[in-house]
Amino acid sequence: MTTLSHLECSQCKRQHSPAERHNLCECGGPLLARYDLEMARRNWNREWIRTGPDSMWRWAPVLPVSTPASITSLGEGMTPLLRAPRIGAAMGASQLWIKDESQNPTGTFKARGLSCAVSMARELGIARLAMPSAGNAGSALAAYAAASRLDARIFMPADTPLANYIECKAAGADVTLVDGLIHDCGRRVAELAGNDEAWFDMSTLNEPYRIEGTKTMAYEVAEQMNWRAPDAIIYPCGGGAGLIGMWKAFEELEQLEWIPGGRPKMIAVQAEGCAPIVRAFERGVAQADPWEDASTLASGLRVPEPLGDILVLRALRESGGTAIAVSDQDMLDAGLELARHEGILPSPEGAACIAALRRLLAAGVLAADERIVVFNTGTGLKYLEAYSTRLPRQHSGEQDKLGGLITPR
Amino acid sequence: MTTLSHLECSQCKRQHSPAERHNLCECGGPLLARYDLEMARRNWNREWIRTGPDSMWRWAPVLPVSTPASITSLGEGMTPLLRAPRIGAAMGASQLWIKDESQNPTGTFKARGLSCAVSMARELGIARLAMPSAGNAGSALAAYAAASRLDARIFMPADTPLANYIECKAAGADVTLVDGLIHDCGRRVAELAGNDEAWFDMSTLNEPYRIEGTKTMAYEVAEQMNWRAPDAIIYPCGGGAGLIGMWKAFEELEQLEWIPGGRPKMIAVQAEGCAPIVRAFERGVAQADPWEDASTLASGLRVPEPLGDILVLRALRESGGTAIAVSDQDMLDAGLELARHEGILPSPEGAACIAALRRLLAAGVLAADERIVVFNTGTGLKYLEAYSTRLPRQHSGEQDKLGGLITPR
Repeated sequence: MTTLSHLECSQCKRQHSPAERHNLCECGGPLLARYDLEMARRNWNREWIRTGPDSMWRWAPVLPVSTPASITSLGEGMTPLLRAPRIGAAMGASQLWIKDESQNPTGTFKARGLSCAVSMARELGIARLAMPSAGNAGSALAAYAAASRLDARIFMPADTPLANYIECKAAGADVTLVDGLIHDCGRRVAELAGNDEAWFDMSTLNEPYRIEGTKTMAYEVAEQMNWRAPDAIIYPCGGGAGLIGMWKAFEELEQLEWIPGGRPKMIAVQAEGCAPIVRAFERGVAQADPWEDASTLASGLRVPEPLGDILVLRALRESGGTAIAVSDQDMLDAGLELARHEGILPSPEGAACIAALRRLLAAGVLAADERIVVFNTGTGLKYLEAYSTRLPRQHSGEQDKLGGLITPR
Repeated sequence: MTTLSHLECSQCKRQHSPAERHNLCECGGPLLARYDLEMARRNWNREWIRTGPDSMWRWAPVLPVSTPASITSLGEGMTPLLRAPRIGAAMGASQLWIKDESQNPTGTFKARGLSCAVSMARELGIARLAMPSAGNAGSALAAYAAASRLDARIFMPADTPLANYIECKAAGADVTLVDGLIHDCGRRVAELAGNDEAWFDMSTLNEPYRIEGTKTMAYEVAEQMNWRAPDAIIYPCGGGAGLIGMWKAFEELEQLEWIPGGRPKMIAVQAEGCAPIVRAFERGVAQADPWEDASTLASGLRVPEPLGDILVLRALRESGGTAIAVSDQDMLDAGLELARHEGILPSPEGAACIAALRRLLAAGVLAADERIVVFNTGTGLKYLEAYSTRLPRQHSGEQDKLGGLITPR
């Protein structure tokens, strides 16, 4: 099954045993799972992938779980990679695909990371999982913890979308609303885990296995594009787990010799109201300063102090990619454009990538004939109020339902 | 590709050519697609299924579309069939699975039927599609019409869930809110299509190809259970397309000789406030009378005059199944129970099947060791207000978000 070999600190390179529970390295660096890819290359074949499970667990040899009984799966992964010729034509991209992560359990890509991390928690005998969340990660943790009979405690900003709050409560999680942003919630989790070691901190990168689940998005894109990576991947960047995980996966795919054509450019998209990675990328620095007064309706992008800043910036630069920020209004309008052209109502974070695509093509950063994959990281159903503000009203004299809407207290 | 042979009236058995557009037979009966299954049996092999597309279009030989270019796919189908041991134990069923249709485009099983019907409309050169909808079918039509560059006009009850309304509008559909129920909307569509033949009536069964897409749920269950059908399938019944389609598929699977163990019992679940099929089943009659004053929060079950009544009742009786009605409160509580046990927040229609399962086991209609598949037909995310009314409030002194919620005007 797994070819997991050890955990390696992304900063000081010190090795740690995967048989024990870990958060960060003593030096403060996030830990990364390392595999015996030489063994995987000898004993595994990309032609066998289709005979595996119809979920992300078909990538088990490069996932950390060692006993199948530890796995909690709700069918995460195996999301469609859809040709998008109509929005492509509208924007001037002739080879555009949408990777539609809204078709995951709980409606977002977060299901992948939490399926992996919760399964590892079971394997390591951890029973109580605590996490800060801007919304969708909390929904996914609550679901996988429920399906694993583990306790989940989630700290989320008080103005997190109501949908996430209800999902967490419905799945039986203990939810604490915090007057603050996700880093404030993170401090509450650190406090809890510091005072009571029964509670394990599941924050992105603070916990080493969430990005292992997340990385399967890149394995799937490679498989779905017949083992030729795209020229560019456009992905929204909040905490950075998606970009870090996928870049790691493309490195592994190269070591497996499964993508002879090389790796894609990685492009990070943020909101103008919270763009620490974009600012650091433009300044040419290795680390991002905290963003003051972070504000965007894309709750998943409201991460002013991403723990993965160094790894994200490294991936963008190593890949020849870039970072770009878009306004909330452009996001929503791009989301509705995607719905009208392709029938996909994306999360605002996914919509941000469509808005970014237009700007990158116009600026010549991407060429019209490049093979581009844009990620829709989640369903738009959790953000109906935001979209409703940009929809045309009905003709006069007709009924219209846009008057009364989700109104969080 | 397709082995489609002709359309056959389900009542008078008259044959019609599939090269032309059709609604009902002259006798008023719904038309059913018939295939050359003998040819399919000779030239197709169930072992090849896994090499097909990762969507319901892997069943192309028993779907009606003849040219691949006509197909509009958003990745519908290939939803997970999940073992559900925890809710099974709570209810006393030792071999229980959930078929999770919420992982479809637009979040419900309706995507299957509309992918098929819209693809056939393209093939037949129909450009303007009109439909009545209780909600989710409208969302799916809007999405597939958008992705096909066809016009969609949708008539829905004014109190349809707001989520459906916004999905339709976002995808560019023309939406008319009707003071009435789905059969009143159906009359508006019939009027429109009667006055202007450019508009085609896409109502369930009034249009012959939606159930062809819907039936792929049964093909998938058979494949996922390794070509041994379950003992019982529990499915919510509004218009009846799901049950009719699946029963037709199991008949086809028998003719293909792919399920030597036989077909399952089909069990229809309705709401106590709108149960025309349950009443007709209990009375032993072949047709259902219209239900007066239909009322249930499960908008998909609020179908007081299902056009498919005869076919549904026939399927229930031929299969040795039954029909059962549950209350709205039991539905919501069962939905939350499913979320707490398995991490799946179902649509109220799916939740109704869980409530029905408990009653059927308690009454001895189903035995503890039968192999049972319960369908969750859609995501609970479109029904948050309903669920929030049954959630426990936070501890006193803590913040709670359940005060302000979706409040349709």
